[in-house]
Amino acid sequence: MPRIAYFGPQGTFTEQAARALADPREHELLPLDTIPAVVAAVRSGEVAAGCVPVENSVEGAVPATMDALALGEPVVAVAEHVLPVHFSVLVRPGTEAAQIQTVASHPHGLAQVRGWLEANLPKATAIAVNSTAGAARAVHAGEYDAAVSAPVAVEHYPLHELATGVADVADAVTRFLLVTRPGALPAPTGADRTSLVAVAVNRTGALSGLLHELALREINLTRLEARPTKDRFGEYRFFLDVEGHLAEQRIADALAALHRRCLEVRFLGSYPRTDGTQTQVAAPTRDEDFAAATDWVAAVRRGERA
Amino acid sequence: MPRIAYFGPQGTFTEQAARALADPREHELLPLDTIPAVVAAVRSGEVAAGCVPVENSVEGAVPATMDALALGEPVVAVAEHVLPVHFSVLVRPGTEAAQIQTVASHPHGLAQVRGWLEANLPKATAIAVNSTAGAARAVHAGEYDAAVSAPVAVEHYPLHELATGVADVADAVTRFLLVTRPGALPAPTGADRTSLVAVAVNRTGALSGLLHELALREINLTRLEARPTKDRFGEYRFFLDVEGHLAEQRIADALAALHRRCLEVRFLGSYPRTDGTQTQVAAPTRDEDFAAATDWVAAVRRGERA
Repeated sequence: MPRIAYFGPQGTFTEQAARALADPREHELLPLDTIPAVVAAVRSGEVAAGCVPVENSVEGAVPATMDALALGEPVVAVAEHVLPVHFSVLVRPGTEAAQIQTVASHPHGLAQVRGWLEANLPKATAIAVNSTAGAARAVHAGEYDAAVSAPVAVEHYPLHELATGVADVADAVTRFLLVTRPGALPAPTGADRTSLVAVAVNRTGALSGLLHELALREINLTRLEARPTKDRFGEYRFFLDVEGHLAEQRIADALAALHRRCLEVRFLGSYPRTDGTQTQVAAPTRDEDFAAATDWVAAVRRGERA
Repeated sequence: MPRIAYFGPQGTFTEQAARALADPREHELLPLDTIPAVVAAVRSGEVAAGCVPVENSVEGAVPATMDALALGEPVVAVAEHVLPVHFSVLVRPGTEAAQIQTVASHPHGLAQVRGWLEANLPKATAIAVNSTAGAARAVHAGEYDAAVSAPVAVEHYPLHELATGVADVADAVTRFLLVTRPGALPAPTGADRTSLVAVAVNRTGALSGLLHELALREINLTRLEARPTKDRFGEYRFFLDVEGHLAEQRIADALAALHRRCLEVRFLGSYPRTDGTQTQVAAPTRDEDFAAATDWVAAVRRGERA
């Protein structure tokens, strides 16, 4: 049975996303300790695919995923999943709110429920641990009084939900990617997204030129993330998400232009959008427009047209 | 004596930056609890200026500062300061490393020394508190065994440095801004930076057009940060830093173009760069080139030239 690795442990939001992206009859889920470990297991072939968080609507990009995808042997996304970030506050059965002295979670979890904690558990000490599920496990073990965790954590630990749907920003969401080794691309659906990493030459107008190549082909940008390289302050690697699939000629044409223009371009995948929003494509950037233009130039070169 | 507020409490990196930006004979420093409180005190006139962190070379932008500068009554930066992020691990005098069971810091502090903690204090529990200095204060009060703090914290709390210069990424730096209410701009130095916020209309090529306006005027971008609006996933506000001063015509001309082109543009200040790097300006974007062009058009309009 092919395995899908995810950034674990069991009981995190990433497990919830991996469950949504996997086929339960076909895949076995394997929690791994870190995001780099998930991507490394994909690269080595130890697993068929890996599920990692890529961005959060409140906190922004997930640096460990950005770094893991941008560097090392290529991996590509074949699917995405968008999950609302609603936490549950879990306690051992019988624990009353007034008894809670310690609340554990991942630092990002603590940051995203800070208002709720101040209003509801103002006297509790916030303990930073490595994952939201690790917090649940530690509460089960009696180390802390409460955990701020993904709802799925109660399926792994016999804890009681003191509160659910906890989030300072009600409509916070996290986007996850399912990545594999490069291979046949998922079939275009008409509602696709393509992800890229580009390192632009460090000169005035370089990023403008890069984005202009997309705009000239009417390609809509859905995300632009500038991640500082760790080497020099002020130097960035750009993560771009655009509407469309590499099977479309306007996307292929733009990628070829970026390959000419950038120090480095890496294809991170073309895959269906969770929200199903259809890409609007009109003249002059439909496949038939590109085909007609290529045919015309070829005919001119042969001396048959002018 | 005019007061400069900073994101406190006393003993944080922001206090170190505020000390560097203030004139000790002219200014009194005032720690405030949150970044929005610092900016609000500047807006109300309660203080002459405020010092806030704006970006870190490892963690990226500081969301609270981005939001505070982009929304509400305008404030502008008049100076910047770049500080290396080297932490000190502080303990009560007499505490041995082997006795340390709890280590407290701000969540970002814990994230930036995680490797060091795993190597040197593997058994200690990481406690997330609201600031690095709050961690030092809590250690002084006996609540925790060690604090990961800014070096300046030892000037406020009688603690011992178990280790200094602690940082997983050796050359991590944080950039701070000194903001005031709008008024006369700092004089141009030839090594200036201008900061902007722009909200582009949500259509294909909007960001490309915005950056193209800068590139056409040979304006170099030193930072581009896309901060999601909290309202809708996929909608962004762009924070731009460029080389140059609004007193230069190419910057003024570009800002006027952005004002026409964007839903919203906010000037966040023109101020000297800490690193003193001179901006290189050549034909055709020197002030004299713009002046000659404007004169020519005016003369043509008057029927004197063609």
